[in-house]
Amino acid sequence: MLTKEIVTDRLLQLQQSICTALENEDGVGKFSTENWNRDGGGGGVTRILQQGAVIEKGGVNFSAVHGELPNSIKKELKIDDAVFFATGVSIVIHPISPLLPIIHMNVRYFELANGDYWFGGGIDLTPHYVDVADARWFHAQLKGTCDQFDLSYYPKFKKWADDYFFIAHRTETRGIGGIFFDRLTANDSIGKQKLFDFLMHLGDSFAPIYLHFMRNKRLLDFTAAQKRWQLIRRGRYVEFNLVYDKGTKFGLETSGRVESILMSLPEQANWFYNEIYAEKSAESETLKYLKKGIDWASFES
Amino acid sequence: MLTKEIVTDRLLQLQQSICTALENEDGVGKFSTENWNRDGGGGGVTRILQQGAVIEKGGVNFSAVHGELPNSIKKELKIDDAVFFATGVSIVIHPISPLLPIIHMNVRYFELANGDYWFGGGIDLTPHYVDVADARWFHAQLKGTCDQFDLSYYPKFKKWADDYFFIAHRTETRGIGGIFFDRLTANDSIGKQKLFDFLMHLGDSFAPIYLHFMRNKRLLDFTAAQKRWQLIRRGRYVEFNLVYDKGTKFGLETSGRVESILMSLPEQANWFYNEIYAEKSAESETLKYLKKGIDWASFES
Repeated sequence: MLTKEIVTDRLLQLQQSICTALENEDGVGKFSTENWNRDGGGGGVTRILQQGAVIEKGGVNFSAVHGELPNSIKKELKIDDAVFFATGVSIVIHPISPLLPIIHMNVRYFELANGDYWFGGGIDLTPHYVDVADARWFHAQLKGTCDQFDLSYYPKFKKWADDYFFIAHRTETRGIGGIFFDRLTANDSIGKQKLFDFLMHLGDSFAPIYLHFMRNKRLLDFTAAQKRWQLIRRGRYVEFNLVYDKGTKFGLETSGRVESILMSLPEQANWFYNEIYAEKSAESETLKYLKKGIDWASFES
Repeated sequence: MLTKEIVTDRLLQLQQSICTALENEDGVGKFSTENWNRDGGGGGVTRILQQGAVIEKGGVNFSAVHGELPNSIKKELKIDDAVFFATGVSIVIHPISPLLPIIHMNVRYFELANGDYWFGGGIDLTPHYVDVADARWFHAQLKGTCDQFDLSYYPKFKKWADDYFFIAHRTETRGIGGIFFDRLTANDSIGKQKLFDFLMHLGDSFAPIYLHFMRNKRLLDFTAAQKRWQLIRRGRYVEFNLVYDKGTKFGLETSGRVESILMSLPEQANWFYNEIYAEKSAESETLKYLKKGIDWASFES
């Protein structure tokens, strides 16, 4: 039987293996480790790498918290039961180079005292400059993982990511999306163990995916203008995370550890007023790709 | 009679006089001017100064918008009438030097089709390093303005600012507060014209207050460590504006012009993970003052 302890242990192993893989590829940066306890119950292990050779700031967080949900969250989740257990691994990597993408992953398990449970998670990519070959490759990896479990997953979860990672006030997606899902629970065609296998398979795909980008792009030179654009795009990332992201909101409203939750924010972000980009510039071309509904997995450039 | 046109004209004059005063004191920076229209009705004049001698990024926005309120805002304001008119001037100034404070002012007038109306606004100061003499002086200015109209205003509006400019997830105030008020409407003891006079008196106090700080602090040298701290404090400012600020939320949800609304964000902000400050350092001392309920106007250091 899949107990909370098994889920928790497996997520801790995932955190460890991802940190090791990222450290090895970075070659310079090392993850710090902070164990923290939550007043209401549970706690976590926050691991942060700052000022690496490739990674400027990256966080690989594990948490397993339990207790009573605040009313605001109960209302949002449309549940009556207030006694919850939630565990997960959350990752955000901000690279030094504007030619490398920001990446985010989250895999999580949620359980109520009444026995209801669900899995949630996703991976999405935020390139500062959209490289269509990279975008296609990234989505093909996610599709490959999904297709091993259920052919309906990728199309459904890809659309969910488009809708979720959307900066409504800018009418632009955060990046090129990926997959996102929530409230995944057993049904006639798939059991709890199999869903957990899917979650872990996704988790295990994270390091190979990001290492692929690190290896291919780490030695590329970039210009001051590209760096400036990266800082602006990071500003959009901050806007998404603080205005829309439900995980951030959940963490802040359940009195999670602020420094762990906001590890998703970049070391530096900028807001220049009303920047205008020339038509056909790399910046304008990237903006054209920041929209919903692009079929990246079979994109023909 | 105090018509919408009179209010609007007076606010436009206020915008102009503040821009002129700030430009004169800065000596280098000039305000750009963008006129914009809102799809749903109305528009505004956005004036931004970037890269001045003292001001790094400052916005002095005028807007006068009308139309139908979205349901989310109607619910928040607890009103049934959806047809609204709103006009105001909003200011945020981010200085180059960490020894100068960030300042914010907003004065606004809101009217519904059914004839209901109210005034709202406030001024608050966010020093990167709290200087208690400055904080006392600042609050004394606001108290002086309030006391000319109603002795109950300053204590009431000062507390309101403490509660409003509060970063709940950090358990710290944004800065040293100031005054904040909303839904101010005529009653037996004060008429509409008098309320508008108060609003404009407050608006007219903005330039002398900030020029006082600009003059006194512009020539002071600062260190790289102080600059770093400023960038962290600006990160907190971003957190407040994107997570809690009702004006920002109102603007984004009523499809205001994004570049105008988010002029409040600094040119650069940073998030370093888990910075720790030595006891008695200037940074730790500042953090001690970022709490509610300090009686700054009669503070004895």
